[in-house]
Amino acid sequence: MNHRWWLDPCKPLDTQALEQAAARQQQLTKPAGSLGQLETVAVQLAGLQGQVKPRLEAVSIAIFAGDHGVVAEGVSAFPQEVTGQMLLNFVSGGAAISVLARQLGATLEVVDLGTVTPALDLPGVRHLRVGPGTANFALGPAMTVAQGEQALQAGRDSVLRAVAAGSQLFIGGEMGIGNTTAASALACALLDCPVAHLVGPGTGLDAAGVNRKAQVIERALALHAAQRHDPLQTLFNLGGFEIAALVGAYLACAQQGVAALVDGFICSVAALLAVRLNPECRSWLLFSHRGAEPGHRHVLETLGAEPLLDLGLRLGEGSGAALAVPLLRLACDLHGQMATFAEAAVADRPA
Amino acid sequence: MNHRWWLDPCKPLDTQALEQAAARQQQLTKPAGSLGQLETVAVQLAGLQGQVKPRLEAVSIAIFAGDHGVVAEGVSAFPQEVTGQMLLNFVSGGAAISVLARQLGATLEVVDLGTVTPALDLPGVRHLRVGPGTANFALGPAMTVAQGEQALQAGRDSVLRAVAAGSQLFIGGEMGIGNTTAASALACALLDCPVAHLVGPGTGLDAAGVNRKAQVIERALALHAAQRHDPLQTLFNLGGFEIAALVGAYLACAQQGVAALVDGFICSVAALLAVRLNPECRSWLLFSHRGAEPGHRHVLETLGAEPLLDLGLRLGEGSGAALAVPLLRLACDLHGQMATFAEAAVADRPA
Repeated sequence: MNHRWWLDPCKPLDTQALEQAAARQQQLTKPAGSLGQLETVAVQLAGLQGQVKPRLEAVSIAIFAGDHGVVAEGVSAFPQEVTGQMLLNFVSGGAAISVLARQLGATLEVVDLGTVTPALDLPGVRHLRVGPGTANFALGPAMTVAQGEQALQAGRDSVLRAVAAGSQLFIGGEMGIGNTTAASALACALLDCPVAHLVGPGTGLDAAGVNRKAQVIERALALHAAQRHDPLQTLFNLGGFEIAALVGAYLACAQQGVAALVDGFICSVAALLAVRLNPECRSWLLFSHRGAEPGHRHVLETLGAEPLLDLGLRLGEGSGAALAVPLLRLACDLHGQMATFAEAAVADRPA
Repeated sequence: MNHRWWLDPCKPLDTQALEQAAARQQQLTKPAGSLGQLETVAVQLAGLQGQVKPRLEAVSIAIFAGDHGVVAEGVSAFPQEVTGQMLLNFVSGGAAISVLARQLGATLEVVDLGTVTPALDLPGVRHLRVGPGTANFALGPAMTVAQGEQALQAGRDSVLRAVAAGSQLFIGGEMGIGNTTAASALACALLDCPVAHLVGPGTGLDAAGVNRKAQVIERALALHAAQRHDPLQTLFNLGGFEIAALVGAYLACAQQGVAALVDGFICSVAALLAVRLNPECRSWLLFSHRGAEPGHRHVLETLGAEPLLDLGLRLGEGSGAALAVPLLRLACDLHGQMATFAEAAVADRPA
């Protein structure tokens, strides 16, 4: 691939819509600021959508799945076959994100970037077969440049389909046994932060498991230290196919002009990578929740993100983002439908 | 009134449904505990509703409004006429809670306990005319015992209507210029906590206003100190009609066996009073959010409450509770509709 599309400019915000929405918020029949973060997010969405009264009816969810060679180091509580088994669960309607997408009336697409069961052929799943999972990044790069660019493009393609379908909000989810290890390694490299501050239990490691995971990450960071200054190569060295797809998706959202709602720790690390590659994309990212994985807090702080929820979630699949959708919708409803002081003949202050 | 109904027993939880729901959570296709607070709340609702898969389709919202004599002391940023003006806004559909009730498909009833405009006669509002607002509690008791018992009963009546309509969740909201002052005074008396720790800007006082409000509360606490040990008389001394109605509503919810979702600071103080009067009612109270008013944190801690949201809200009207309804519904959907490991043929751990 010659054209490094991820460096293309992002769509600018509509500052006029933003200012008009902010002015409208001051006129609604409530004490100024009393709807807290819901006011901020409604105004931000106005600027992103270029309309004073934003709407979030059409929501697209894409789950990106991939396996991780680093699981050979014993870093996960679940067997690696679960990645493929969960693909079936996603399209069969039994996974958390399947239930949530149904209840929200959101479209759900499932993209298999490459698992340890390459022969998998599930109706309703897009099997891209970038590779049979990544290579073990404790021993070498997780993926080749060609694989990495293919994964970035897969995320972008998903966003292009969402845009073509008229989506007003894009949610990327992830599934991949071992991917908190990859995300933690990426976060340590990007934030230049001690491994002990960022590593956590993932789906349920015990203390010894967390310790082993930290040691694996230390080794990998040392192995790939020379390329730490290069975020794209760091992604290819330490990431996963699904993480690269998320990076591509967030960048494409900002270029195409559709708001992206970021899920938990792994998605936030992908968002951080997207911002490092193309800083303008930050404005297009909304953050849904602060999860239980300890590294999440650090990544969110670095991004200046103030997520809507803090429920102790650590599932992934885009589930935390989906859970925040009703709040965003209600923020838009309040912003668009509340009466102004003048309309309702209610006295504004002072007393 | 001879029968002190608020001391009657509360409905016990269904421990069998609770245990079965907890067991079901362990079998769903996700790492155990990975849905955080949503798991806890789904299990709690199972115990309250007496069914392994609880539902929250039918939601009743009641807003209780009343004026406060203590406003004469200059404790509010808004003029007192706003209470009555907002009653019209509630039933006209322009207030925040009106928008939220509509979007949630919840019923909304508006109960005017007594405002400074006693001639008010608005279609769709239940005008109970307990009094023309409370008396100034810095000078004497806010209400008589008869008024207090009438207000408690008004809250209970609202719950009885909700139960008759088949409601699965009750939300009480409040509106009353000056009512953070009453709630702060009650919280100080109940928690034996310094006024400075609990008092805040309410709908938007500046620092001088907060200071004046604190001094008024100090005076009132001294005036009514002899009855501090008696939570019911303290409610009548320092409370508001709408606060007493909320206390009655929460107690009636627990007695009738319908879950109550508590809104912000003022509602949480009413919940604390309900628990002091009849401790068993605590199990029937769910807490929706941690608001911006500083006293809210203290009250929630005393109640051992872990609210779902923390969005910097300070509006009242039941709006924070309404905003949490989609999360509770999705918690029930996830709990009821997700596949088990066995159903989905997904490997549970260990790896």
